[in-house]
Amino acid sequence: MKALCYFGERDIRYDSFEDARLQSDDDVIVKMEKCGICGSDLHIYHGHGFSADTGFCVGHEAVGEVVETGRSVKRLKSGDKVMISAAAGCGECGPCLAGHINRCQGRGAACYGLSHALEGCQAEAIRVPKADFNAWKIPDGISIDQALMLTDNLPTAYLGCLNADIGPGKTIAVVGLGPIGLMAVEAAFVLGASRVFAVDLVAERRAMAEKLGATPVDGKEAGDVIREATKGRGADSVVEAVGSDATIRLALSLAGRQGTVSVIGVNQTRDFSFPMGLAFAKGLTFRIGTCSVQCHWPDLVPLIRDGRLHPERFITTELPLSQGAEAYRLFEAREAGTLKTVLVP
Amino acid sequence: MKALCYFGERDIRYDSFEDARLQSDDDVIVKMEKCGICGSDLHIYHGHGFSADTGFCVGHEAVGEVVETGRSVKRLKSGDKVMISAAAGCGECGPCLAGHINRCQGRGAACYGLSHALEGCQAEAIRVPKADFNAWKIPDGISIDQALMLTDNLPTAYLGCLNADIGPGKTIAVVGLGPIGLMAVEAAFVLGASRVFAVDLVAERRAMAEKLGATPVDGKEAGDVIREATKGRGADSVVEAVGSDATIRLALSLAGRQGTVSVIGVNQTRDFSFPMGLAFAKGLTFRIGTCSVQCHWPDLVPLIRDGRLHPERFITTELPLSQGAEAYRLFEAREAGTLKTVLVP
Amino acid sequence: MKALCYFGERDIRYDSFEDARLQSDDDVIVKMEKCGICGSDLHIYHGHGFSADTGFCVGHEAVGEVVETGRSVKRLKSGDKVMISAAAGCGECGPCLAGHINRCQGRGAACYGLSHALEGCQAEAIRVPKADFNAWKIPDGISIDQALMLTDNLPTAYLGCLNADIGPGKTIAVVGLGPIGLMAVEAAFVLGASRVFAVDLVAERRAMAEKLGATPVDGKEAGDVIREATKGRGADSVVEAVGSDATIRLALSLAGRQGTVSVIGVNQTRDFSFPMGLAFAKGLTFRIGTCSVQCHWPDLVPLIRDGRLHPERFITTELPLSQGAEAYRLFEAREAGTLKTVLVP
Amino acid sequence: MKALCYFGERDIRYDSFEDARLQSDDDVIVKMEKCGICGSDLHIYHGHGFSADTGFCVGHEAVGEVVETGRSVKRLKSGDKVMISAAAGCGECGPCLAGHINRCQGRGAACYGLSHALEGCQAEAIRVPKADFNAWKIPDGISIDQALMLTDNLPTAYLGCLNADIGPGKTIAVVGLGPIGLMAVEAAFVLGASRVFAVDLVAERRAMAEKLGATPVDGKEAGDVIREATKGRGADSVVEAVGSDATIRLALSLAGRQGTVSVIGVNQTRDFSFPMGLAFAKGLTFRIGTCSVQCHWPDLVPLIRDGRLHPERFITTELPLSQGAEAYRLFEAREAGTLKTVLVP
Repeated sequence: MKALCYFGERDIRYDSFEDARLQSDDDVIVKMEKCGICGSDLHIYHGHGFSADTGFCVGHEAVGEVVETGRSVKRLKSGDKVMISAAAGCGECGPCLAGHINRCQGRGAACYGLSHALEGCQAEAIRVPKADFNAWKIPDGISIDQALMLTDNLPTAYLGCLNADIGPGKTIAVVGLGPIGLMAVEAAFVLGASRVFAVDLVAERRAMAEKLGATPVDGKEAGDVIREATKGRGADSVVEAVGSDATIRLALSLAGRQGTVSVIGVNQTRDFSFPMGLAFAKGLTFRIGTCSVQCHWPDLVPLIRDGRLHPERFITTELPLSQGAEAYRLFEAREAGTLKTVLVP
Repeated sequence: MKALCYFGERDIRYDSFEDARLQSDDDVIVKMEKCGICGSDLHIYHGHGFSADTGFCVGHEAVGEVVETGRSVKRLKSGDKVMISAAAGCGECGPCLAGHINRCQGRGAACYGLSHALEGCQAEAIRVPKADFNAWKIPDGISIDQALMLTDNLPTAYLGCLNADIGPGKTIAVVGLGPIGLMAVEAAFVLGASRVFAVDLVAERRAMAEKLGATPVDGKEAGDVIREATKGRGADSVVEAVGSDATIRLALSLAGRQGTVSVIGVNQTRDFSFPMGLAFAKGLTFRIGTCSVQCHWPDLVPLIRDGRLHPERFITTELPLSQGAEAYRLFEAREAGTLKTVLVP
Repeated sequence: MKALCYFGERDIRYDSFEDARLQSDDDVIVKMEKCGICGSDLHIYHGHGFSADTGFCVGHEAVGEVVETGRSVKRLKSGDKVMISAAAGCGECGPCLAGHINRCQGRGAACYGLSHALEGCQAEAIRVPKADFNAWKIPDGISIDQALMLTDNLPTAYLGCLNADIGPGKTIAVVGLGPIGLMAVEAAFVLGASRVFAVDLVAERRAMAEKLGATPVDGKEAGDVIREATKGRGADSVVEAVGSDATIRLALSLAGRQGTVSVIGVNQTRDFSFPMGLAFAKGLTFRIGTCSVQCHWPDLVPLIRDGRLHPERFITTELPLSQGAEAYRLFEAREAGTLKTVLVP
Repeated sequence: MKALCYFGERDIRYDSFEDARLQSDDDVIVKMEKCGICGSDLHIYHGHGFSADTGFCVGHEAVGEVVETGRSVKRLKSGDKVMISAAAGCGECGPCLAGHINRCQGRGAACYGLSHALEGCQAEAIRVPKADFNAWKIPDGISIDQALMLTDNLPTAYLGCLNADIGPGKTIAVVGLGPIGLMAVEAAFVLGASRVFAVDLVAERRAMAEKLGATPVDGKEAGDVIREATKGRGADSVVEAVGSDATIRLALSLAGRQGTVSVIGVNQTRDFSFPMGLAFAKGLTFRIGTCSVQCHWPDLVPLIRDGRLHPERFITTELPLSQGAEAYRLFEAREAGTLKTVLVP
C-alpha cells in the first residue's frame, strides 16, 4: 500500500509500505477515508522522532471503514465507519476503563505514528489493535469531517477550555488561533463565556475568530488591549494553544486575580522561566497536559449534532495523500488562511 | 403619593398612600422609575396576603433613582440609579454576607410588598432599609429594563437552570414558557445545553421559544414527543417554571435516568403525590426553592452586557402605574402574547 | 451443587441445584467463599420475586475463587480471588464503559439472583458472564471480608453520603443504623462531616454508631433532639438508609435550609406524600437511586487499605450456607445486635 | 502603650508607642489578649518591610477584647471578644462582600503591620478600621487559642489542601512541617485523604506528623520513598508549606499523573525554573496564592468545635510581649520542637 513515512528531519515521503494486516484476533484493518495533519505532527517533522525508528508511517487522526476483522472482535464488522484517535490502549486497566486511554497502564499501549510499534494512519489502511476498544463507530448524525475533528483536535480544544475553568459570565483570552485555538473560542462560548479575546499575530486568523463572536487582539499588543478592556482586571481564564515559551508567558501575564491559565500546546522545556512571584500575587491556577479524547465525546457529540459546535468549518485544505509531503511543507510554512489540512487517499 | 395597594382577594387599587420617608439613618428613598408585576404577585392578588394586613403597597421588583439618603448611608447618594430586589436583609448575618439575603437570619429582614412591615415598590417612591446593603447601583452598561429583570426574574430563571445541573451537551426540557421559562431557555443555552425542548400549551409562547433556538413542544404531548426525540432516554435536566402539581409531575416524568428536575415555580402543596418508585428507578435529583438574587449578578451582569442574554426582550407590556389594577387583571387572564408587564409612574 | 433457592414468599431453601458451568467463552466459574445477605434480599424473601420464576438461586454479593475460565477470558485465570457485584453488564455500552453497570444498555445485562436469567451467588459456585468485565480481582491489601463489603453495601453507603452533599464542617443525620447506615456514619466522617446524628429505634445500634463518633438519637425524638442541638437549623445533609415512607418523611423533616436529603433505601411507592411546600420553603435537594458499585472502588479501596474505613466490622454473623434458610428468618426478625450476615459454603 | 516595632533588618524592638485610638466613627479599639508570630512576619524581620516606613507596629494575627467603639459601629460593643485577621477591607466592594477581603478593591484596604498605614497587632492595643466588617466575634465554643489560629494559619493550611484537590481516597504529600504544614496534615485527613506523607528535614517535626496519622518521610529521600510506597505513581496531591524554590521543585517532582501541586508558602521568585516538560507529561495542576481567611470559617469553626481539628495543639511557645524581640530571634533560629509562638501582653 501507499503511506506517508518518516525518514528524518523534514523528510516525510509518500512511499510504498507493507500492507496493513491483522496481527492478532483483536485487530481490525481500516481503510482510511480521511486523515488529518496535526500541529503535533510537526514535532516529528522537525526531527523529534519520539523513537530511533525511521521508515514508519506517520499520522494519528483518521476516519475510515472497517474492511477486515480479527476473530474475537465483537463490536465491529466490515463496513462500519470508525474513528481512530491518537492513542491505543489495552482496554482493561483502570485508566482505560475510565476513558483515560492516554494514561493506559497496560501492555500494548501505544500512540499511532511515532515508531514501528504502531504504524500511523496517514496511509491507505491502518491496523487497529484491541479494536473493540480502540476503533469507535462514528455516531449517528456526525459527518466524516466532524468525526475526523473528534479524533483529536476538538477534544483537545475543549479540554483546554475545561482546564481553564471557563464558566458563565467569564472573560476569556485564547492565545494562538490555529484550528485548535479557534475551536477553543467556539467551545468557550458553549461553556458560557461572556467575552472572548482572540489573540494571534496573523490578521486573517483574528478575522476568523471575530466571525465566531470573539474580540480580535493583535498578539503584539495583547497585554495592553486586554488590560484596558477589562479595566485592569485581566482575563478570568486563558487558553494557550501554541506551546512556545513566549506564548505561555504571555498567557500567564494576561490572567487576572484568581485566574486560570490552561496550556494545550505541547511544551517540553525543562527550565521554563515561570513568574512565580506574579503567580503568587495573582493567586493563579495553571494546568497543562494531554487530552483523554474519548472522555469528552459524551459532551461533544450532541453539541456537534445539535449544531452548537462546527469543527468541520476549520478544515480549509484537502489534498490527496500522494501530496502529503507537500502538505507537510505547506503546513510548516503556515500560509495565512490555512487551518486544518486533511489528506484523502 | 400614589401606589398600588392590596385590600383583599382580587382587590388591588391605585390609591393615595402616605409618602415614603426615611425612618432610620440607614434608609434611602428611591423614586420609582419602573417596576414589574411578577407571577408571585398573583399569589397575593388571589388573596394569599402572606399577612393579615390590608392596605399595604404591593410589588417587589423595581429600579429607580435615589432621592433622599439617611445620614449613615455611605455607598449611595442622590441621583444614583439603583435596583431593588425582592427581599431586604440585615446585611450583617452570615447568610447576608454570603449573598443569601433570602435566608437572612437578622432582625429587619423582610420582603417588599407582603405587609406593612415593608411597603412594596409598585408605588411612586420606595423606602429601602439598610440601603447600603439593599439598594444596588445599576452596573455600567446595563439598561433600565435589563436592570429591572435582574431584580428577580432573570436570576430566578438562571438558578432554575443551575439547580437542574445543566451542562455542556445536555438535553433539557423547560416546562412553562412565561418570561421566566423563556429566560430559562436562553440561560440553558448559555450553560452549554445542546438541545432544549420548550413545553407550553400556548402556541405563541412556543413560537417565542423556537426563536431562541428551542424545539417547541405542545404541553399535551410532551411525554411522547420528548421520549421519541431522545430515543427513550428522556431529558437530562428539566426546569419547571409554573409551580402547579400537574406541571411538576410532568417535569418528573420527562426526566431520564440520573436526570435532575428543578422547580422554580412556587408550590405550597403539603402532600404532593411524588412518584417515588419512578424516582428510585431513574435515580433522580430533585431541587426546589427560592432564589438568592444577588448571588447570581456576577455571572449575569457580564452575560447581559456582552450580549449573551437579553432579558429586556421579554418585557412586552408597559403601562402607567395608574392602570395597575387593570394590569393585574390582564396578567391574571394571561392573554396570549403577553409576557412581562412593567409599570411606570 | 448446593444453593439457596427461592420458591415463593418466605420460602427460600437450601437445596440441590444444577452445577454452575460455562455457557460461553466469556464466562468463568467462581467457587464461592463468602456471600452476604443484603437488605434488598428481603424484598425477594417477602415474595417480590422481580420475576415469575421460582427455583432460581438467590444472592448478589460474593467473593470467591476462579476455578474455570472460558477460552476468550483474558484478565482472569484459575486461582484468582474475585469480587462479584450485584449487576452484570455487557462491558461494551457507554454506561458500562463509564463504570455505570447498573445502567447497562447492552444485551446480557442482568442482576444476580432475581430469576433464572442469572443465577444468584448464595450457592457453592457461580457462573459469571462476560467475566473479564464482571468479575474483579480483589485488590492487594483487601481482606476477604472487606472485599465482600465492597461488592455492594459499602459503595451504597458511600453513594448515599455523596448524594447527600456531605462536605467538611457539615452537620449530618443518618436515619436507620443497619450495616449500610452505620457505614454511612463512618463514610460521613471521611467526607469531612463535623457532627453526625445517628438515628434509630434500637438502642444497641445507636450504641454502635456512638462508638464510631456519632451522636446517638432515638428515632422517636429525632426531630426535637436535632432541632435543639442545631439551634433550630436542622441537618445540612440527611442520609436515609431504610426506604420506608415514614423514614423518608422523617429525613425530609430533619433537613435544614438548603439541605440535601439522600435516600439509599429501596422505595417503590407510587404516590409518596411529599411535603412540597416545606421543601420549597427550605430550598431542598432530594436524591434517590441505585448505586454504580464499581465507580466508587477507586475511592474506597485505598480508604480501606489505609485504615480509614472498616466495613468488615459490620459483619456480625457468619453461618454455613446450609443454614441459609434459617439465616433469612433471623435476618427478617432483625434480632438486636445482628448486623451483616455472611454465609460460607 | 507598648508594642513591637520594626526599625530595620533584624531590628524589631519592644518599645513605647502612641496609644491606639479611634480615628473614625467606624473604628474600634481592641485590647490585645494574644497575638501570633507568623512565618510571613520573618519576611519583615529580614528587612522586606513592604514599605519604606520604619517605627511601625508589626503583627497581623490577634484576638482581644473590644474596649472602645466608634459611634457608628453596630455589631460590636465593649467586652466583645474578637478575632483580627491579616487584612482589613472596605467591606463594601464585590470581593469584600464575597468574603475575599484579601482582594479588596475599595479604599482603606490594608494589611496590619506592614507600614504606618495600619499598625500591627503585636501591641497592647489595636485600632481596627471599619470594625463591623473587620473584627469578628469569637464564635461560641471556640477557645482563645483556637480563635487565634483561625485568624490566619489554619485557614491558610486548609486553603492549601483545597487548592491541592484533596479528596476521599487520595494519597497526599505535605512538604514542610511547620505549624501550617502540620495543620495541613490534619486537614488533609478531614478532606478524606487515605494516606499522607509528611516531609521535613527535622525528625521532631516528622514525629509530630506521625502522631497525626501521617507517614513520616525525611526530606532528603522523599522522592525515592514516595515513589516506592506508591509503586511509582507518586502523590495525587502535594501541599507545599515552605515557599522556597527548592521545596516547590520537590513538590512538583512528588506529584503523580494528573496530580495537583498547591503552594501555600510565600514565593516571590521572578524566574522560577519550572519543569514544564514534566508538568506536560504528568498533566499537572499547579496553584499558588494567598488566603481569603474569612471564607473558610463556615467550614472550620464547626470542625474545631466538634473536635475534628485541633489547631491549638500547634501552639508550643507562649511568651510575654515584652520578650517579643527575643521571640523573633528564637523563631528565626527555628529551634527544633518549636512550632507556633504566641505573645501575651
